[in-house]
Amino acid sequence: MPSYKAPVEDTLFLLYDVLGFERHANLPGFSDASRDVVEAVLQETGKLAEEAFQPVNRIGDVQGCVRADDGSVAIPKGFKAAYDAFAEGGWIGLSADPEYGGQGLPHTLAAIVNEYVSSANMALAMYPGLTQGAIAALTLHGSDALKRTYLPKMIAGDWTGTMNLTEPHCGTDLGLIKTKAVPNGDGSYRITGTKIFISAGEHDLTENIVHLVLARIEGAPEGTKGISLFVVPKLLINDDGSLGDRNGVSCGSLEHKMGIHGNATCVMNYDGATGWLVGVEHRGLPAMFTMMNEARLGVGIQGLAQSEVAYQNAVAYAKDRLQGRALTGAQDAAKPADPIIVHPDVRRTLLSIKAFNEAARALILWTSLKGDVGHASDDAKDKQTGDDLMGLLTPVIKGVITDVGFDNTVKAQQMFGGHGYVAEWGMEQFVRDARIAMIYEGANGVQAMDLVGRKLGRDGGRAIMALFKEIDGFLAANAADEGMKPFLEPLKKARGDLQSATMWFMANAMAKPDNAGAGATDYMHLFGLVALGYMWAKIARAALDKTVDGTGDAAAMGVKLTTGRFFMERCLPETGARLAAISAGADAVMALPAEAF
Amino acid sequence: MPSYKAPVEDTLFLLYDVLGFERHANLPGFSDASRDVVEAVLQETGKLAEEAFQPVNRIGDVQGCVRADDGSVAIPKGFKAAYDAFAEGGWIGLSADPEYGGQGLPHTLAAIVNEYVSSANMALAMYPGLTQGAIAALTLHGSDALKRTYLPKMIAGDWTGTMNLTEPHCGTDLGLIKTKAVPNGDGSYRITGTKIFISAGEHDLTENIVHLVLARIEGAPEGTKGISLFVVPKLLINDDGSLGDRNGVSCGSLEHKMGIHGNATCVMNYDGATGWLVGVEHRGLPAMFTMMNEARLGVGIQGLAQSEVAYQNAVAYAKDRLQGRALTGAQDAAKPADPIIVHPDVRRTLLSIKAFNEAARALILWTSLKGDVGHASDDAKDKQTGDDLMGLLTPVIKGVITDVGFDNTVKAQQMFGGHGYVAEWGMEQFVRDARIAMIYEGANGVQAMDLVGRKLGRDGGRAIMALFKEIDGFLAANAADEGMKPFLEPLKKARGDLQSATMWFMANAMAKPDNAGAGATDYMHLFGLVALGYMWAKIARAALDKTVDGTGDAAAMGVKLTTGRFFMERCLPETGARLAAISAGADAVMALPAEAF
Repeated sequence: MPSYKAPVEDTLFLLYDVLGFERHANLPGFSDASRDVVEAVLQETGKLAEEAFQPVNRIGDVQGCVRADDGSVAIPKGFKAAYDAFAEGGWIGLSADPEYGGQGLPHTLAAIVNEYVSSANMALAMYPGLTQGAIAALTLHGSDALKRTYLPKMIAGDWTGTMNLTEPHCGTDLGLIKTKAVPNGDGSYRITGTKIFISAGEHDLTENIVHLVLARIEGAPEGTKGISLFVVPKLLINDDGSLGDRNGVSCGSLEHKMGIHGNATCVMNYDGATGWLVGVEHRGLPAMFTMMNEARLGVGIQGLAQSEVAYQNAVAYAKDRLQGRALTGAQDAAKPADPIIVHPDVRRTLLSIKAFNEAARALILWTSLKGDVGHASDDAKDKQTGDDLMGLLTPVIKGVITDVGFDNTVKAQQMFGGHGYVAEWGMEQFVRDARIAMIYEGANGVQAMDLVGRKLGRDGGRAIMALFKEIDGFLAANAADEGMKPFLEPLKKARGDLQSATMWFMANAMAKPDNAGAGATDYMHLFGLVALGYMWAKIARAALDKTVDGTGDAAAMGVKLTTGRFFMERCLPETGARLAAISAGADAVMALPAEAF
Repeated sequence: MPSYKAPVEDTLFLLYDVLGFERHANLPGFSDASRDVVEAVLQETGKLAEEAFQPVNRIGDVQGCVRADDGSVAIPKGFKAAYDAFAEGGWIGLSADPEYGGQGLPHTLAAIVNEYVSSANMALAMYPGLTQGAIAALTLHGSDALKRTYLPKMIAGDWTGTMNLTEPHCGTDLGLIKTKAVPNGDGSYRITGTKIFISAGEHDLTENIVHLVLARIEGAPEGTKGISLFVVPKLLINDDGSLGDRNGVSCGSLEHKMGIHGNATCVMNYDGATGWLVGVEHRGLPAMFTMMNEARLGVGIQGLAQSEVAYQNAVAYAKDRLQGRALTGAQDAAKPADPIIVHPDVRRTLLSIKAFNEAARALILWTSLKGDVGHASDDAKDKQTGDDLMGLLTPVIKGVITDVGFDNTVKAQQMFGGHGYVAEWGMEQFVRDARIAMIYEGANGVQAMDLVGRKLGRDGGRAIMALFKEIDGFLAANAADEGMKPFLEPLKKARGDLQSATMWFMANAMAKPDNAGAGATDYMHLFGLVALGYMWAKIARAALDKTVDGTGDAAAMGVKLTTGRFFMERCLPETGARLAAISAGADAVMALPAEAF
């Protein structure tokens, strides 16, 4: 019943008119990404999402994944054809190294494609999505031999990838990992242990699966500094590259989950499986974090993706469902009632989602682009800015966009009244699927602590000071423009709240770290609001420019300005409440003994 | 896996120490509700909830309801034994008219019992819950003959009740109802039409089901003023009171829903079913609203109930799960990690739920008690106050407590990390079950419009002015108490925001009703925050008094004060953001044409 249309036009507007993607054409990777190429990528992957991924989304939810007694797992009907089309299009390796068959295009384009396919079918999109993370980790940390063995097959989509971190007794606290690795003497290791919550751990989509596994080499130091990263293929690979014997790794069971039923979430048993070290002994965690950061950005994109598809369907319903009359009198007197989109509360709800989605998309693209430019540029300052902002923004994108994205699926479901609660309409699946994004790849509370405890103070706060400087520069450059006033004043106020919160931490969290912990989630959301507000100010600037110079459709640009004004007036004032909560400090939070809860 | 403990102690503290329940002992109904009786009611129903309702909650979710080809519906295993125990205890008729077998106790006590059983098993609690609503409607609007026929059986729990409003094309907009009633000439009517989303519409729990059905008598005026209310039993009743032939009403299908799987949500087909008019021709809607208001309060209670049970389980997990170390250093160095309840962000999350639950419980009891006192008292002023406040607070309780209650189940689920997403842990069921409460008995946007469009201005704003007066009286009476300062200042600020919002509507919504519609939901939540803040101030007053006079355990009273301070510092500041959103008005909300969404 639900439908999906990839927002290609909005993406192009953001990429070119707001973010000036074409300004970087001189950089490697970008030089191959002419506007024609970018448009073709967006249109083709958008079409794949709409026509191959979306039609099997609901069947994936209903059928789920089924494990047979032999440990094999069947994934939902129709998933393979869609996956194959995606792999054959070369989309898995869109931003991967051309040496191994990738297209070498900017990661920003891969982020866009991930949004489209995740909107259309989140459970299915996770199979190639996790593969991309594994490709990134192997590319950066693997030996040449490992890269030659695995990357071409993974980039082609013949083999998928997984990440194996969690164990029954340890999730966030990876220092507790027990999975053991014993050297075989030939450069390989015997891996033994149990991993849980392994997405795409076993399936019948591809002939082989490449597991990246955190384990502790016998005799390694305790804690996080004794963990190594291994590659463990489901089927061993012969010297000629052909597939060999089954390795000692198998799926022990599947989890029964709230959502993403089409993705196989496995308990993986490693029973003396053969694995090869990726990178340096005991330095597995930093290597895995390459994959994690990629994955966290990807999860933030899932939050936007579910919010977007839920919004599209809520809008369609609101235009179609007749119920009640407009407060100002019947809009369509010939019909028994008006469509519910005439009601202010329905519009307010829809606009709050729309205003979030467009700014969240902008923020993801803006951050990705900074990362890409840093990556491709020879300029040390560009590199530093890219690294700094990617580090600072990744937890914000993961935490805020999945929190609000989930809330938005709930709001969109609400538009349907009782029908939203009924499975056939598909809205409740969006809610259930979106829910996991707040949890995996580091629960959002952990993202908040990463932001406040690690990213904020790193290098003397260089990253956030750079961000403030960029926003201040924008405010100053636009101060004289009357048309920008509805955007600048609220942004200035919100930015001030963020600065006050940051200073409050500086003054109060050094001596008492609980003050940072107690305010971390509020700070992350305050940060997200300011970042999204800044995006709306940038969008408004572009919309005004294109209205004046005639390159933009005046009506479409007017819609942008109105949507942005809605965000500034109705969403941004939340910063004040967040600041107040942060400034309350940890006293009441920490006062009670555990038994008083 | 999840467990539940009825919060009897907290309820008694609220009832006696905060709300002075015993002060009304002179009133009818209350005179039978001595403290001993109340304690016995709470303990016995709490035990039933814990030992009979809760153990079958998960099996109800997994099994769901099954419709056979003959239209009969089997409900989950174990539900009947729990239901029978509840009925046999006389709990369905706790506040029903003694003339028909009820206990005639205050409704406030029934509200408490509903919280307990809804926490333990929401899907199961709905069967007696809906029956209570039907009992209320028949008691107030039914003829003596109807009352004699139906009430004793319903109060005894031998027959359950339903409410039939929604049709495929009409939910909120009941003026569109098409179900037809044709007089049979003998005082009965032939009812024909289709009703959807009928909770408990068909089941094998009791021998008969009593449907209250809205239908339009042939030739009735169009719109809401031509709708009548009928009672339509599943099995006709012979003159001697025995059960007779099957009536022309049947379950056409069951909905596949996101949650409350244990409750049968039916499409009901009326095919010339015999029904009897309840109350006056064409005046069915006001009669049905007796049931609706009862039901709306009951749904608000469901929001609290799911929030409470989710909280209890999150606390248990947070004390048990070892992960990471306290920011201030290891709390239990002998163990591999500290329990996650040491982390400030975990405590903040848990406290935000706890602080909400205790105030929400207070608000429900305070409102119920005002209603009970108004109902029982001979004093015209008491009656007016009771009616006014019940009218004003019902949409707030329904809308706010189900919105925040649902959010709280999501927060509680989040405490479990990946385990929260796995069905066996039971946390995701709380989320799915709680979700419906935001939708049924009038979606929360409709509650907001009821509050702003109908309740606020009624009788010249008498109800809200009385509430302001009560809060102001409290503020003045406590102004000199230093210990109350952390409560009074924030309450005063929040109350000021509510007044500003109310005045903004007065100034801006008369001429432009969209200004009220665009701000309605924010206003409802602003109202809820002030009401909950007022409850915390009242709780703090009681806690301070009991600390001073020694009647309260100092540690327990200290926990109340800390929890309340947390609410005032961290939750209440949201009023400012709500006021800002309201004051932004409808311009941006209404500006876009439908096709721009």
